[in-house]
Amino acid sequence: MSSLDAVLQSVKPVAIISHDATNSPAAWREAVEAHPSTPKSFELIKVLVYKPKTAKTATPQPLVIIARESTEIQANLIAKKLGLKEARLASEDLLTEFFSLDKNSLTPLALNESNFSKTTPVIETAITNSDSVYGVHALSSSETIFLTGKDIYAYLLRFEAEGANLQDLNFEAIKAEAEAGAAANPKAAPAEKAKDDAKIEGAVQIAIGIKKEVDFAGWYTNVLIKAEMLDYYNVSGCYILRPWSYSIWEIIQDWFNEKIRAMGVQNAYFPMFVSSKVLEREKDHIEGFSPEVAWVTRAGNSDLEEPIAIRPTSETVMYPYYAKWIKSHRDLPVKLNQWNSVVRWEFKNPQPFLRTREFLWQEGHTAHLTQPEADTEVREILELYRRVYEELLAVPVIPGVKSEKEKFAGGLYTTTVEGFVSTTGRGIQGATSHCLGQNFSRPEMFNIFVEDPNDPTGQGKTYVWQNSWGLSTRVIGVMVMTHGDNQGLVLPPRVACVQVVIVPCGITAKTSDDARKAINDMCEQLADSLKKVGIKAKADLREGYTPGFKFNDWEQKGVPLRLEIGPADLAKQQTLSVRRDTGVKAPLPLADITTTVPQLLDTIQVDMFRRAKETYDSRIKEITRWEDVVSTLDDKCVVVLPWCEEESCEDDIKERSGRAAEPQDERAPSAGAKSLCIPFDQSRWTPIEPGKTKCPACGKDAKRWTMFGRSY
Amino acid sequence: MSSLDAVLQSVKPVAIISHDATNSPAAWREAVEAHPSTPKSFELIKVLVYKPKTAKTATPQPLVIIARESTEIQANLIAKKLGLKEARLASEDLLTEFFSLDKNSLTPLALNESNFSKTTPVIETAITNSDSVYGVHALSSSETIFLTGKDIYAYLLRFEAEGANLQDLNFEAIKAEAEAGAAANPKAAPAEKAKDDAKIEGAVQIAIGIKKEVDFAGWYTNVLIKAEMLDYYNVSGCYILRPWSYSIWEIIQDWFNEKIRAMGVQNAYFPMFVSSKVLEREKDHIEGFSPEVAWVTRAGNSDLEEPIAIRPTSETVMYPYYAKWIKSHRDLPVKLNQWNSVVRWEFKNPQPFLRTREFLWQEGHTAHLTQPEADTEVREILELYRRVYEELLAVPVIPGVKSEKEKFAGGLYTTTVEGFVSTTGRGIQGATSHCLGQNFSRPEMFNIFVEDPNDPTGQGKTYVWQNSWGLSTRVIGVMVMTHGDNQGLVLPPRVACVQVVIVPCGITAKTSDDARKAINDMCEQLADSLKKVGIKAKADLREGYTPGFKFNDWEQKGVPLRLEIGPADLAKQQTLSVRRDTGVKAPLPLADITTTVPQLLDTIQVDMFRRAKETYDSRIKEITRWEDVVSTLDDKCVVVLPWCEEESCEDDIKERSGRAAEPQDERAPSAGAKSLCIPFDQSRWTPIEPGKTKCPACGKDAKRWTMFGRSY
Repeated sequence: MSSLDAVLQSVKPVAIISHDATNSPAAWREAVEAHPSTPKSFELIKVLVYKPKTAKTATPQPLVIIARESTEIQANLIAKKLGLKEARLASEDLLTEFFSLDKNSLTPLALNESNFSKTTPVIETAITNSDSVYGVHALSSSETIFLTGKDIYAYLLRFEAEGANLQDLNFEAIKAEAEAGAAANPKAAPAEKAKDDAKIEGAVQIAIGIKKEVDFAGWYTNVLIKAEMLDYYNVSGCYILRPWSYSIWEIIQDWFNEKIRAMGVQNAYFPMFVSSKVLEREKDHIEGFSPEVAWVTRAGNSDLEEPIAIRPTSETVMYPYYAKWIKSHRDLPVKLNQWNSVVRWEFKNPQPFLRTREFLWQEGHTAHLTQPEADTEVREILELYRRVYEELLAVPVIPGVKSEKEKFAGGLYTTTVEGFVSTTGRGIQGATSHCLGQNFSRPEMFNIFVEDPNDPTGQGKTYVWQNSWGLSTRVIGVMVMTHGDNQGLVLPPRVACVQVVIVPCGITAKTSDDARKAINDMCEQLADSLKKVGIKAKADLREGYTPGFKFNDWEQKGVPLRLEIGPADLAKQQTLSVRRDTGVKAPLPLADITTTVPQLLDTIQVDMFRRAKETYDSRIKEITRWEDVVSTLDDKCVVVLPWCEEESCEDDIKERSGRAAEPQDERAPSAGAKSLCIPFDQSRWTPIEPGKTKCPACGKDAKRWTMFGRSY
Repeated sequence: MSSLDAVLQSVKPVAIISHDATNSPAAWREAVEAHPSTPKSFELIKVLVYKPKTAKTATPQPLVIIARESTEIQANLIAKKLGLKEARLASEDLLTEFFSLDKNSLTPLALNESNFSKTTPVIETAITNSDSVYGVHALSSSETIFLTGKDIYAYLLRFEAEGANLQDLNFEAIKAEAEAGAAANPKAAPAEKAKDDAKIEGAVQIAIGIKKEVDFAGWYTNVLIKAEMLDYYNVSGCYILRPWSYSIWEIIQDWFNEKIRAMGVQNAYFPMFVSSKVLEREKDHIEGFSPEVAWVTRAGNSDLEEPIAIRPTSETVMYPYYAKWIKSHRDLPVKLNQWNSVVRWEFKNPQPFLRTREFLWQEGHTAHLTQPEADTEVREILELYRRVYEELLAVPVIPGVKSEKEKFAGGLYTTTVEGFVSTTGRGIQGATSHCLGQNFSRPEMFNIFVEDPNDPTGQGKTYVWQNSWGLSTRVIGVMVMTHGDNQGLVLPPRVACVQVVIVPCGITAKTSDDARKAINDMCEQLADSLKKVGIKAKADLREGYTPGFKFNDWEQKGVPLRLEIGPADLAKQQTLSVRRDTGVKAPLPLADITTTVPQLLDTIQVDMFRRAKETYDSRIKEITRWEDVVSTLDDKCVVVLPWCEEESCEDDIKERSGRAAEPQDERAPSAGAKSLCIPFDQSRWTPIEPGKTKCPACGKDAKRWTMFGRSY
């Protein structure tokens, strides 16, 4: 009875259209939008099926979520609301079993008399009472049927029976509720998501409480909140950067400013607003940001005559003025940078530091007379980015160039430093330095030219060569993921705003006031002498807290080195040093403390980088047979392939390396492998023999070794 | 024939209401909104009457502008469009003469058969064809009549006759056109406004071209653009801060960060968005920002479920989290600061640096256990603000406390440093440091409390004492206005990003290559040796520009000191120094240049401050008789009065010191004097004798000497 004809007997469609079979939401939307009979205004409906955790012997009862395409689904929150446990995306088998459909054809119309009562169907409230038009799959990925929300609701309601109710829920409200809860009580939110077995047994209240290896996402959030790096905010996708993380950003700013000033780059500030006209000038030429642009349409109680965008990036903000300012080759190069925040209203699940709707970054925008100059700068900046990661944050990265598919859409080529999160085995783009070529300066774009100084006739025009490059607060997230452990944050000394904490120990009720004072004074003196040699030291003399509490507190916050001073230490004129990264304890004589501590901090910095690099290196696998790709990815590695560099092959690799039946982690959206970069240093792998070495994915001639991986 | 009855014969009102007589647009709006018969949706209509410049013997023909209340009127642009000269707001006499009405009763209905053809009537296009309802005065300030736009238009059209046409114009488009012109060609915009006699005769293309003393607004804009401090941007009220001004801000940031860090303040970053709910929490309690808030209502193509505001300031962003973080008195004090941009969508005429829709600032927000702690910090911060002005920018300010009327509406008291623009004789608020008291921490606001550590029962709650304090890029505008001259910008050495420019001179076509090289090399060497002693020096070795061009160029940009090196200087091992502030030239031996140049820069800094302070001091007049107030203000001075400190008296002073019949300068909106501050240092004026010294405005007992002035 679930044939389309049967369905059509009971609903009055606004329209039905046929199109090519589609295998993704984006393809579906494209196909529908291209069809002449599609209603002018509509939204697509998505159907997501989850399998809640049940006893192994129980028959699974799938959770079927019917929602507007644009609605962010947090299945675990919904499941929790319904009293279900751990909802995981259903396998294709389950879909076939229940609905005789694959995931590309799923539709509310797949629910019928025979399967309705075997599922837990949920519909988004907004749909149920709506006269708006919604597109749903007509039981096939190549047909779409348009119905009003009310009709969809009515269609489903008829299958209700005793014990088989259609739930309607406001998913936005559920999400807001959870976030409000998280904001009000940071301990609750991650705990909600934390798997039971991820909880660290006996974890005391201030410890992290979730194991990094088991529930990475829960661990990450907990570390950030407990280390006071960040707090949740009541606007979704926005976070508060507390001093403990912002100070890291300031250290990076100071370092980077010094380096770029030496290159002749000047800082400036351009407005955060872009008029719709100017933004649309780019839209015609460059895909990308427009679906994520936040629009200001009202000021006070007045509607603006034209909506004004908040910058998602500043090419269109800046380049009209470059055209005005650059009058002669003598005005070149122009090298401006700004530290600002940009807004990209993504609807994907936000992730602190990695994907946020507002984020802090620097964006450099330069204009040059010649390509070689531009090329040189692109690599100089990339080298600075590498150093920010490796020298400041102790996070190893691989510099390389992006594939055509992955480059910045408006540019000529994109260089990148690629990081790696070993716990999940995923790559993560660290920062990018783009050569835009003359794509933005050409007459139909921003028309930025000078008279060619090398043209003897004096008539020739040269369109300028442009670069843009950016590094965001994402670096902080990568650093936390790389170094953090089950005690909390681990900060590399160079970016720690407290490098050494000094804790008085061994003070008991019996300790005399004099002895107590002597210990506290020694802690203060020690802090002072370290400060004098440029070490960020702090004596923690807080009253009313035990040394154990303080140890935990500073461990959680990742302070690289702890020095303990008790009565015995005082007597021996020494201090016990405890490394945060290794836990190694060693007494240090106070006499030469201003030499030994800086050295120890250097050692910690070097060791942290070395260990992270060993891990990364060990997880980059040289692969030449396709059969080894997926299993290597599944082993939480990235693969490096001798690659043909063709876009169709990249699409194919992504498709074939996806794990369709496995749960999709919404926070790590790309389950298929994409190209991460073509490393500049090709020498670490077996030389490619031109015409002989073949691409393992398609069999064509390989060009360069290219890293592929699942990624953030 | 202009009685209301006559009017009512020809229009069909939607409603007519009576209310109290009103004497301002705000009061009118309030009266109308309070009336039960007012239509739900309406806009008020304003009528502005200007007198264009004509020959003295000619009969004036007023320009009558009919527009929606929310429309920003730039009368000069409109006048220009109509071929009229210099439109100034008409005097009350002129209004009475033409319309038998005062300015509070002006209405389109005042136009009739007898006066229509004697005026130049203009109506905003948006009104003419609109079915929306508009409120207009019913020939009196105590009656309002509601008509559709079409009806208003029809009413007016009947008076058209040969040579007496009603013009309809799109005022937004005229403004946008002018701004586009300004953005495309910065020279055009100020020139438009510049009075003919302000142009400096024989001014070459790169010089300022407008005299500071004659057309101050035109001069200011020109200086900013030609010094490359700033550029106009195509979103009204937003400006580009180019490196030449942004570097000043960076110097201020570095200095201020160092000082506040020493006070235990930490930097952080809070999101730029505020949910409408949270913002409205403040709205109930505090007047102020809501008419100027920019609202994001859309992301990509999706409407947000709730509009989200862009912060106009961050009290409501931050304090909910203070409530969460502050659990115990041990968590106090909390001292956070952020450097960010805020948005206040003002509809008044924008002015670069002084009044912009987005501006950069720092905002500090602190919480303390006790009022004395809070009080102390308020003054410490104010002292830092004074030093930013006086020590860095060489701009004198007067520290004091604001009157009740002028304080931050949500706070307990506001301290301020008040500056002075001598060219216009107006005061300008420099920066403010507020004690918020417990107004934001109390239970019905943000509920920020700790257990009172001094309460023996352990039950008592103490609501925290809060401060907030901010300094914005406005400081740069005040600095430019204070020191700039008819050659352009004059930078105090401490904030100049180039302190010394070295220009090779005396090179002619006959100069040998060796001699040329020797001179250029010496310039480079000189720059290098100065850089080594921490001086920001630059050798201008650009080819193809004459020394004269370079002199002009750097003078315009305000570089404090120029050093010239020609063949004769080289021979004598000396350089000719030229001070930007005084033009004084003096040879300096190269031998001790690394001592003499830093000393000379210090002298320049001190001299600039001393001169500006002498001017300010000479313009603060101790006044004890009311008769002297207005004439002193008219002499471009501020007055200091022995004041009663009563709000009604302040209102009265403002009212009585306004110059109603004189042209209102839209950029300096307050023509009446308001209180600037009650200076902390009362000792410079004759001691007030309690009970004896009387307030010259109202005759009551004087409390403290208080500065009043016209202001920005």
